[in-house]
Amino acid sequence: MWQLYQFPLCPFSRKVRLLMSEKGIAYDLIRENPWEQRDEFQNLNPALRTPVIHNPERQITIVDSRAICEYFEETVDKAPMINGTATNRAEIRRLIALFDENFFADVTHPLLEERMKKRLVYRQSPDSRILREAMRMANLHLDYIDYLIDHRPWLAGATMSLADLAAAAQISVADYLGGIDWSQHEQARGWYSVFKSRPSFRPLLSERMDVIHPPTHYADVNA
Amino acid sequence: MWQLYQFPLCPFSRKVRLLMSEKGIAYDLIRENPWEQRDEFQNLNPALRTPVIHNPERQITIVDSRAICEYFEETVDKAPMINGTATNRAEIRRLIALFDENFFADVTHPLLEERMKKRLVYRQSPDSRILREAMRMANLHLDYIDYLIDHRPWLAGATMSLADLAAAAQISVADYLGGIDWSQHEQARGWYSVFKSRPSFRPLLSERMDVIHPPTHYADVNA
Ligand SMILES: N[C@@H](CCC(=O)N[C@@H](CS)C(=O)NCC(=O)O)C(=O)O
Ligand SMILES: N[C@@H](CCC(=O)N[C@@H](CS)C(=O)NCC(=O)O)C(=O)O
Repeated sequence: MWQLYQFPLCPFSRKVRLLMSEKGIAYDLIRENPWEQRDEFQNLNPALRTPVIHNPERQITIVDSRAICEYFEETVDKAPMINGTATNRAEIRRLIALFDENFFADVTHPLLEERMKKRLVYRQSPDSRILREAMRMANLHLDYIDYLIDHRPWLAGATMSLADLAAAAQISVADYLGGIDWSQHEQARGWYSVFKSRPSFRPLLSERMDVIHPPTHYADVNA
Repeated sequence: MWQLYQFPLCPFSRKVRLLMSEKGIAYDLIRENPWEQRDEFQNLNPALRTPVIHNPERQITIVDSRAICEYFEETVDKAPMINGTATNRAEIRRLIALFDENFFADVTHPLLEERMKKRLVYRQSPDSRILREAMRMANLHLDYIDYLIDHRPWLAGATMSLADLAAAAQISVADYLGGIDWSQHEQARGWYSVFKSRPSFRPLLSERMDVIHPPTHYADVNA
């Protein structure tokens, strides 16, 4: 059985969980706070980051959410998520990088620092200037999703792909942390509400991160 | 013909150039300073980052170095660089992420900010504290390369892979900017010197970035 090392608000772990669920791959969750830098975790991943996926029976360890997703895409035929021509696949990977890197750096990472780490680790209050800037950037990223959904049924084209899972994973964490203002984003909101009701997404939305509470609309499929 | 939008010290563009050369794919270089945020460049890549690869005849644009490398790996058989079993491929991709993300964030990015952008764009002098920290981190990353090369002929295993190209690309930029102290790193130095004499690497080493000069050992294959 696969073991996924993660914490509930790690967006990269959420992407992996969505992919594994869509593909019907069973896994156990192992709670890991990477900032605690446990020795056993460092043995699995010297870079000390989540997610890591480990299969003790088969002695396989895979590090990095993109490496993990490509691995399951190559080894499990069900529900292909990096699909189509080489050009389609390149467009899927462009958008994965956009959400994993730009959205994360502009929005998810500052929200996690200010609203999660400062609360749980540093015992400080959040910096409201940084929070405002993260929300402003979230708004620009949602504008781009609106634009894509105006032109295509799913973010990367005609079918659902890992780009949608990557985007939904980042957005769900930002939404949990109160960073998303959905008004003015009809298209993005419509696309995201389809995800919220998927069986792969329900377990994520029902989890809570320690003492941090999401806004009431967060897990509401009709919001 | 492919057009590669890049500037000489962009490590991700260097990785793409190494891959294209190894695979024998012809390309033209287009000089792009992403921080100038040209409108034409934003039309190619809304995220305003290099590298971008564009083929006007075939109307293909690919953004993000990992998406570009996976695309050439899928479409050009020569010199496979993400090869082997699914587990081998995952190990290659883990190391690509380590160099593209951790080495870049810890070493290449601060060196580029302090020694290139402050000089060319902000007209400021570099912060020596940040430079020292980047060099300390470079040392730790080289320790890890020493460890890998003690156990394997190439970074990800028995054959040269995109992990080697990704690492060499980052290190070459850090070395250009005076961030690498090669003493104490026999294994990493031996591995890197093999690269320096490869035909794919020679054109990179002979290029210069505007008024910024590399140390004398930089392009010397015997150093
Ligand atoms: N590119 C990596 C990013 C992983 C990453 O940044 N994970 C964060 C958690 S969201 C982490 O472990 N950070 C280290 C820390 O918080 O100490 C991936 O896709 O897996
Ligand atoms: N993950 C991207 C990273 C690209 C990246 O960060 N490029 C830098 C140059 S090295 C950039 O364009 N930064 C924007 C700027 O300098 O304004 C890739 O692999 O292509």
